[in-house]
Amino acid sequence: MAHKDIVLTGDRPTGPLHLGHFVGSLQNRVMLQEKYKQYVMIADLQAMTDNVDNPQKVRDNVLQVLLDYLAVGIDPKKTSIFIQSLIPQIAELYVIYMNLVTVNRLKRNPTIKVEVQQRGFGQNVTAGFLTYPVHQTADITVVKGTLIPVGIDQLPMIEQANEIARRFNHIYKVDVFPEVKALTSKVSRLPGTDGTAKMSKSLGNAIFLCDTADVVAKKVMTMYTDPKHIRVEDPGNIEGNTVFSYLDAFDPDQKRVQELKDHYQRGGLGDVKIKRYLVDVLNNLLEPIRTKREALAKDPQEVMKIALKGSDDVLEVAEQTMKEVKEAICLNYK
Amino acid sequence: MAHKDIVLTGDRPTGPLHLGHFVGSLQNRVMLQEKYKQYVMIADLQAMTDNVDNPQKVRDNVLQVLLDYLAVGIDPKKTSIFIQSLIPQIAELYVIYMNLVTVNRLKRNPTIKVEVQQRGFGQNVTAGFLTYPVHQTADITVVKGTLIPVGIDQLPMIEQANEIARRFNHIYKVDVFPEVKALTSKVSRLPGTDGTAKMSKSLGNAIFLCDTADVVAKKVMTMYTDPKHIRVEDPGNIEGNTVFSYLDAFDPDQKRVQELKDHYQRGGLGDVKIKRYLVDVLNNLLEPIRTKREALAKDPQEVMKIALKGSDDVLEVAEQTMKEVKEAICLNYK
Repeated sequence: MAHKDIVLTGDRPTGPLHLGHFVGSLQNRVMLQEKYKQYVMIADLQAMTDNVDNPQKVRDNVLQVLLDYLAVGIDPKKTSIFIQSLIPQIAELYVIYMNLVTVNRLKRNPTIKVEVQQRGFGQNVTAGFLTYPVHQTADITVVKGTLIPVGIDQLPMIEQANEIARRFNHIYKVDVFPEVKALTSKVSRLPGTDGTAKMSKSLGNAIFLCDTADVVAKKVMTMYTDPKHIRVEDPGNIEGNTVFSYLDAFDPDQKRVQELKDHYQRGGLGDVKIKRYLVDVLNNLLEPIRTKREALAKDPQEVMKIALKGSDDVLEVAEQTMKEVKEAICLNYK
Repeated sequence: MAHKDIVLTGDRPTGPLHLGHFVGSLQNRVMLQEKYKQYVMIADLQAMTDNVDNPQKVRDNVLQVLLDYLAVGIDPKKTSIFIQSLIPQIAELYVIYMNLVTVNRLKRNPTIKVEVQQRGFGQNVTAGFLTYPVHQTADITVVKGTLIPVGIDQLPMIEQANEIARRFNHIYKVDVFPEVKALTSKVSRLPGTDGTAKMSKSLGNAIFLCDTADVVAKKVMTMYTDPKHIRVEDPGNIEGNTVFSYLDAFDPDQKRVQELKDHYQRGGLGDVKIKRYLVDVLNNLLEPIRTKREALAKDPQEVMKIALKGSDDVLEVAEQTMKEVKEAICLNYK
């Protein structure tokens, strides 16, 4: 086990996690925890940046996300799972970093530009939303994270974090913060069940890790395939055919997937048949996760204790970081 | 003693305090502590917003400001003197409030507009500087301050604080934060020794509370008077004559001041004579402050303990406030 790099990752608790998260990040975390010290943050304060009016939703989903983590095999013995708002040092670092970045620099952040549009903020973007990359820098640096699993669209966040951390080290002539590296995923993004580019709760095209076998079957049966594939005997198109994208992502028997693709393209393989096959593949994958999740969900207090314990672990690290930071900026009174 | 209102006030530790502070705020605080629960904050983090490169200056002046407070009679038994950076709950509130205010609203703040110009930020205003009114809202509300002594130029800050606090109460259907009232000073601003409108360390026109009797004398002797008053026997002008402004502000014998004014305007009263008189008035005022300050300065550690103790008191209040806030936003895990 190499412990040089420190992994920091996490999710906004705005809904239960789905197959897109499973492919994009959860599987990866289960592997990473074997190689690195890993911190997984439930970003409740970041979730509040665009859920000001709906704090109960955020609160409820802290437990849901936590259940998903444990059910897929993120192991609290190997990974510190923690809750963002329980670490006041993150807020303290945020205040200090805010002086190291200009408003104009934040406005140029491409990720923020896109997200401000998506969320329809228009001219009413809040100070909290515009500056959340600074808060993310605090998330990363409070545990001195060096390896951050991100999608390509999140690369500007890593750049911003490095700018701030380097500026801190430079101005105060210290070496408190290490360089942050992005760990970009090689996996292509899982489409939604409706064939659109992204699986997401708000688009209503997601299969959740906590969906029952029946719900999974129902969602798969309405899945987007090849709209021109009308009769079973017709040749079908596998390009942009969501069923095959999912088989690529989830069927452990990829030889069989190739045979099915060939058959579908030749003609003679119906959508219903291939969808039933996918239902089995997905439920085989999800069944142990679902079982574990249901068992855990019976004692939510016990589950929350895991996040509280993880947060306590992070607090210790955060205190040490803060001590170094306050020494660097001469505000070490004690 | 009425305890209904809670006073919150303070200073940025960027230099020792001067006669302008004495007239504008310190005297007032010595009175307010008899009537109200009063918190006086040494705003080290706010000082950092435009002293990023010079943290040692901020740190050194924390002690200087603290010595000034104690020397003028702010009594730690009646007033909680505390250091801003020792209260992490202020940073936590700042993070939460940032979602309740738009970037455009902050840009419209008249005080910020003027200060951005004064400090020459231009297009490079930092996120920390633009949003310091949000941080001030956190300063005020963390102790549930209701009465804030301010100059008229700071009224937009109180307005901003109320906007945020009301919005918090409204969105989360609580009554956590009381209305904040500005306590505007009736005293007119003390001019600098050079006759410009404002006494300030950076303008080099200040008489500090810690100046020796000799330094006070020297500064008074170079003071701006009536440039047309050349010969002793000529009539002199008292309008805009700094010596008389100071006598108005500091001479306990205002009948005598009126006589001197009459004499000066008639002619026959020289600048040197009137300045020597002012030196005596000022040194009479400053002597006991100076003596107390010098005695205290002999044991800086003991003096710092007063601010640490005050900060501990504030921490207790801050924890209670934060408990209520976290309950309101549903992020109360413990």
